[in-house]
Amino acid sequence: MNRRMVLYMVGSVIKIEALLMLLPLIVSLIYSEKASAVSFLISIAIALVIGFAMTLIVKPGSKVIYAKEGFVTVALSWLFLSLVGSLPFVISGEIPSFVDALFETVSGFTTTGASILTDIEAMSKGMLFWRSFTHWVGGMGVLVFVMAIIPSFSDRSIHLLCAEVPGPVVGKLVPKLRQTARILYIIYIALTLIEIILLLIGKMPLYDSIVHAFGTAGTGGFGIKGDSIGSYNSYLQWIITVFMLLFGVNFNLYYFIIMGKIKTALKSTELWVYLGLVMGSTALITINILPFFESFSSSLKHAAFQVASIITTTGYATTDFDKWPVFSKTILLLLMFIGACAGSTGGGIKVSRVVMLIKNCKRELQRMLHPRSVAVVRFEGKRVDNTTINAVSSYLAIYTLFFCLIVFIIGIENFDLETNISAVAACFNNIGPGFGRVGAAMNYSEFSGLSKIVLSIAMLLGRLEIYPIILTLSPSTWSKK
Amino acid sequence: MNRRMVLYMVGSVIKIEALLMLLPLIVSLIYSEKASAVSFLISIAIALVIGFAMTLIVKPGSKVIYAKEGFVTVALSWLFLSLVGSLPFVISGEIPSFVDALFETVSGFTTTGASILTDIEAMSKGMLFWRSFTHWVGGMGVLVFVMAIIPSFSDRSIHLLCAEVPGPVVGKLVPKLRQTARILYIIYIALTLIEIILLLIGKMPLYDSIVHAFGTAGTGGFGIKGDSIGSYNSYLQWIITVFMLLFGVNFNLYYFIIMGKIKTALKSTELWVYLGLVMGSTALITINILPFFESFSSSLKHAAFQVASIITTTGYATTDFDKWPVFSKTILLLLMFIGACAGSTGGGIKVSRVVMLIKNCKRELQRMLHPRSVAVVRFEGKRVDNTTINAVSSYLAIYTLFFCLIVFIIGIENFDLETNISAVAACFNNIGPGFGRVGAAMNYSEFSGLSKIVLSIAMLLGRLEIYPIILTLSPSTWSKK
Repeated sequence: MNRRMVLYMVGSVIKIEALLMLLPLIVSLIYSEKASAVSFLISIAIALVIGFAMTLIVKPGSKVIYAKEGFVTVALSWLFLSLVGSLPFVISGEIPSFVDALFETVSGFTTTGASILTDIEAMSKGMLFWRSFTHWVGGMGVLVFVMAIIPSFSDRSIHLLCAEVPGPVVGKLVPKLRQTARILYIIYIALTLIEIILLLIGKMPLYDSIVHAFGTAGTGGFGIKGDSIGSYNSYLQWIITVFMLLFGVNFNLYYFIIMGKIKTALKSTELWVYLGLVMGSTALITINILPFFESFSSSLKHAAFQVASIITTTGYATTDFDKWPVFSKTILLLLMFIGACAGSTGGGIKVSRVVMLIKNCKRELQRMLHPRSVAVVRFEGKRVDNTTINAVSSYLAIYTLFFCLIVFIIGIENFDLETNISAVAACFNNIGPGFGRVGAAMNYSEFSGLSKIVLSIAMLLGRLEIYPIILTLSPSTWSKK
Repeated sequence: MNRRMVLYMVGSVIKIEALLMLLPLIVSLIYSEKASAVSFLISIAIALVIGFAMTLIVKPGSKVIYAKEGFVTVALSWLFLSLVGSLPFVISGEIPSFVDALFETVSGFTTTGASILTDIEAMSKGMLFWRSFTHWVGGMGVLVFVMAIIPSFSDRSIHLLCAEVPGPVVGKLVPKLRQTARILYIIYIALTLIEIILLLIGKMPLYDSIVHAFGTAGTGGFGIKGDSIGSYNSYLQWIITVFMLLFGVNFNLYYFIIMGKIKTALKSTELWVYLGLVMGSTALITINILPFFESFSSSLKHAAFQVASIITTTGYATTDFDKWPVFSKTILLLLMFIGACAGSTGGGIKVSRVVMLIKNCKRELQRMLHPRSVAVVRFEGKRVDNTTINAVSSYLAIYTLFFCLIVFIIGIENFDLETNISAVAACFNNIGPGFGRVGAAMNYSEFSGLSKIVLSIAMLLGRLEIYPIILTLSPSTWSKK
């Protein structure tokens, strides 16, 4: 294990975080929020000290890293990002409890959007900006960002990309890894900008537009109003619906489209299953909730918004869907687990994994009838090898295992099963709101400190797809060998 | 597909069922319940007509069967068993609705124990005997029984055993298959008799003892009182606790013990994990529910009983555990899914599958760190080949898929998520009672006809471990080729 290189990379991430905090600092200054500005300044200073301490004092001998270092770097980076990122909240006193601030920050970076805030509108503009900006940074991945801008990370760091970008298979778009990271971020920035412009056209104030574009792009869900997106007009709600769905698509497809390979993009099985799920769920829910709204179009709008919000694991809401009939809630609960496409900013198990699992089940049925037959699983036009299939199957198993484990620990909170299970589902899949006491109109403030920490870990496990965290915690990873 | 042979075997099963119905007929005569006796006579006549029609008219040319025929035979046998088995309830008018009677019978044969009866104690002794007897017949498997007694089924029918006995790997105990089936049934009968005797010693009436021994042996859970086992004394409750656990153990281990290979039996990983889960869960729940009971011993008794009842998927209750704290309910909910050991009469995913899944996850972690390493999964001292691991992983996937699908359909019942999810969990895992409106003190009568049918299918899917049913429903299975 190349510990020095790990420390060096984590240090770089913290330095970048210091840089990123300049943005909310500027926002604080614009709105003349002195306390916030000072908190950001102090936090930046602390981040720089830690960052430089890690990168200057610990000089890595060899820059070579393997899978092991990749996983550990990603896990530690996200932990430090969250620890340092929660400083402004604590220092400014806007979230006095450190556990609460950490929960909120982890929720931000992991693009969960679960909040412990009981009165969002009382927060300063600078803090709310930082809170939403963490979504944007966490969405595409902070190490991907580092790879895109720091030359020394280039090309030998495929393991970082594998560990940070969600999904069963990570493909380089172009031979040069740094190029890939840049392309991903250019698409990400472009889509975010387009959303901001479209929101501005709909008469959303600039600040609100930026913040909500961050929340949509990262499929995060932090808003700035007590009723999330509920008080904005229908045009804005539809724009956000469409962009949530766009950010839930595999970014590789956008690259294909830019390259003029639209046909290749449209051949994606994952895309069509994803769209099918969205349309089917929207149709069913629209009919189911018709009695709750004055018109069909209103019912359709709310159904589409909530479906998009949940399947992409964003977590915005236009209405309190916790009050919907159980049928609609069941559909939403199932979508929570499926999640968005691989290679998107969304969480959950991912549509591609679900498709591969179903195909593998079909193959297993074949094998039961004809034990000697050799059936092949094909996905996206390619043959999927057994290692990948086993990886996907194992992921489902380890996912289920951790889900149960977290539900078990959260069981100590004597709420009700619906609240506990949906809270874990909402955090583990990086969605945000669940049902019952963590419904769209509620928040996580009632949970105990222990549960908040466990749920924070759940969010990290979900965002990094479990393995980086377990591998970092396993002693054998740290052996010198 | 050897359709004639399938029909012939299903016909034999129905003839056996006619034979089995003689027992409740005798009980009805003993208690001079005329209406019941007549219903059983008519049902026996119908069963014989159908059975002989199938076996006499359709003479199979070849007696050779493959996996395909095995699965289809098992699925159709269970379907016909349930259809014919529900006749006495309908004919006697004790359960007038056919859907209700079918639900109750499927629940019986699949050893689920979910009931639509609102007043059990109003039923006739003959009907209640039949209801519990279906548990006993379904527990070890009706085709295993047929194999044990009909010579023409011997030895070429390993596929029947595979399709009917739960668990990932089915081992023949002795080279001769018929011998294996007989040994299994001898152990089963012996354990049942011992339980009856021990219950009689505890002053339980003979009728009650037999009925409850049936319910325990099949890990079914049908009782004859409104409060299940609640009104019996502590000795009887402990006896039932111990026997539920005994029937949740892989029967192969009993065979080893009879053969004097006690050491081999005690080496079983599955056994120790199973006992560990039971003891750990009991300890945690005992502490958690202490405030609800007057003494530690009472708390321990109820905790142990409920844990044994749920993990073995029996479903008896000594108290309304739906009123327990969420922590205890969470543990019980998780145990619902794990289920008992493979090769037992219990349902659920099975402890051995869970152990193998965890071991495979460990291997996957190894592979991530050292992509070129070849790690081996070992279980019960043997190397598990990749085909078995993939089969177990696929089972988890297909299990999850069907679970979600059934929850989705049951979502139409506008109860609450806790009720719906736990109802599906309780039926799919063959337990019986769930939480909320299907809690230990409640029943399934409130569900709509559609849901009752869907839940009946869920019970069959759970008992037969999914594959036989899907394969029977798939058109390619029925092709002449």
